[in-house]
Amino acid sequence: MRSLSVGIDIGGTTAKYGIVNEQGEILEQDRISTRAHEDVNQFINDLYDKLMPMINRHGGIGNMKGIGAGAPNGNFNTGTIEYAPNLVWRGIIPMADLMTAKFGLKTLLTNDANAAAVGEMIYGCAKGVKHFITITLGTGVGSGIVIDGKIVVGHDGFAGELGHTIIRKGGRFHKGTGSHGSLESYASATGVRETAFEFLAADPTEPSLLRNYTTEELTSQTVYECAIKGDAIALKVFEFTGEVLGEALANAVMFSSPEMIVLFGGLTKAGDLLMKPTKASMEANLIQVFKNKVRIVYSNLKESDAAILGASALVWS
Amino acid sequence: MRSLSVGIDIGGTTAKYGIVNEQGEILEQDRISTRAHEDVNQFINDLYDKLMPMINRHGGIGNMKGIGAGAPNGNFNTGTIEYAPNLVWRGIIPMADLMTAKFGLKTLLTNDANAAAVGEMIYGCAKGVKHFITITLGTGVGSGIVIDGKIVVGHDGFAGELGHTIIRKGGRFHKGTGSHGSLESYASATGVRETAFEFLAADPTEPSLLRNYTTEELTSQTVYECAIKGDAIALKVFEFTGEVLGEALANAVMFSSPEMIVLFGGLTKAGDLLMKPTKASMEANLIQVFKNKVRIVYSNLKESDAAILGASALVWS
Repeated sequence: MRSLSVGIDIGGTTAKYGIVNEQGEILEQDRISTRAHEDVNQFINDLYDKLMPMINRHGGIGNMKGIGAGAPNGNFNTGTIEYAPNLVWRGIIPMADLMTAKFGLKTLLTNDANAAAVGEMIYGCAKGVKHFITITLGTGVGSGIVIDGKIVVGHDGFAGELGHTIIRKGGRFHKGTGSHGSLESYASATGVRETAFEFLAADPTEPSLLRNYTTEELTSQTVYECAIKGDAIALKVFEFTGEVLGEALANAVMFSSPEMIVLFGGLTKAGDLLMKPTKASMEANLIQVFKNKVRIVYSNLKESDAAILGASALVWS
Repeated sequence: MRSLSVGIDIGGTTAKYGIVNEQGEILEQDRISTRAHEDVNQFINDLYDKLMPMINRHGGIGNMKGIGAGAPNGNFNTGTIEYAPNLVWRGIIPMADLMTAKFGLKTLLTNDANAAAVGEMIYGCAKGVKHFITITLGTGVGSGIVIDGKIVVGHDGFAGELGHTIIRKGGRFHKGTGSHGSLESYASATGVRETAFEFLAADPTEPSLLRNYTTEELTSQTVYECAIKGDAIALKVFEFTGEVLGEALANAVMFSSPEMIVLFGGLTKAGDLLMKPTKASMEANLIQVFKNKVRIVYSNLKESDAAILGASALVWS
């Protein structure tokens, strides 16, 4: 029958995996450390030992249509993970081939943001939408671009790195890439924190709840908590973040003209604090022909499930 | 047999049209004024009167596979021209339908930059290339994006407006759109001219051949002529133009990961003066995974033919 699929979300710290049915229900899930496995083969062996009993509880290999995996710097064309700075495995890892060989199940791999986009397309708020862009606003900023119902992977499998596009020429330094003014350096959890520090330093006499936190305690979460209490600087941080994000979205809209943009990840907890300035800024930066056409929405997938769902959905799409 | 197609390039001043064979040879061509026809129906009647004898000299309607047309703000999905600021026809013009009805030949329409991309794909240097972007550097800046061998038109038919993406936040004002810092405001013939004025004004004591021209005489062409004579300010103008263009290309590459970028239009006459700083700037703004992968080339299609060829190629693609 092959009515189920396996979804694996490979992150820097852990890999989460689960068995998913076509309705997008995760029937069972678990996790395994990635960081503790310096050798990728050891990782796959340990994953096999934990995942196989789970597969067997759901009808065995013969009931699985395949394995879908999402990973940072995952390449859909080749099934490899290439030079991922956040993973312990260096160089080019032929992850899909290794898993296919070990499990005897066809494995498809893509980058984590593309997997999220597939999840939105199959199970989320982009169901039936042919042209949309998913932006994940987490520790970093990832993106998955869908045109005509297909994920854009480009000639080399690496397309969709909107987080690294330069939005503010000569702007904030990005440690990971050495670039200045990238979207990720502003519109990520890390970026929000840095903006808060900048605003606090720029206006040292203005009272702010944010000043009650140590440098370590101050995170995008604490900025959010202060903002909903009405703290002026915290509110300004989200307004600024939305302004930069909206500029990037406008550029993306003028590129591929999507009908919907789905925002996903930790920062979206900020709700209207982020959504309102983002929408306003996007509209202000669009030329006439694109204005008031593009819906920006927050993902309605549960964050803890979405990565597994998205990865598993590669098998159906 | 239907072995030929008709290509029409509709511009603000004239419409150029011709009969093209599958090898991309223009067998005969002519032009008709657009500006002189305030009523689009009158335009189509006059076009018919001039084009039909040409069609009849090449086997008649029965020998034509169809009509392909490129126009500013042309919408491939609907075959309409919508709110084109440079055309005398206002509002939404159902151009493809009007032509199909008049000629009894299926007419496909797209925007002029997309037509250029189709031309490159079928007859030009992007033959066989599945992922590429065409940028036209003329009075304005247009773009046609090809992913997996298909022109990206987006959900509403208007995708591919890279000329209007913002590259320099808060930068140069664009009269046509009201935006600040768009690619078009720098990397067009108009932009080059404006950069020259800015540089001359910024350094009023530095001698420059450019100062021998009146405001009216100073064009991107005269800047080029001064640059090849070694004029320092003129050279700096092309360096700066390439720098901005390269930034925009880097952002585009991180979006759709093309293997080739084809530059086309008047500014490309500047040759290496523009190409070298463009390449250097693009590479400097790419994250590692995209570096040294993307070829930037100048179109090898004859400029006067390319628009007709590109439009006619819609029929074959």
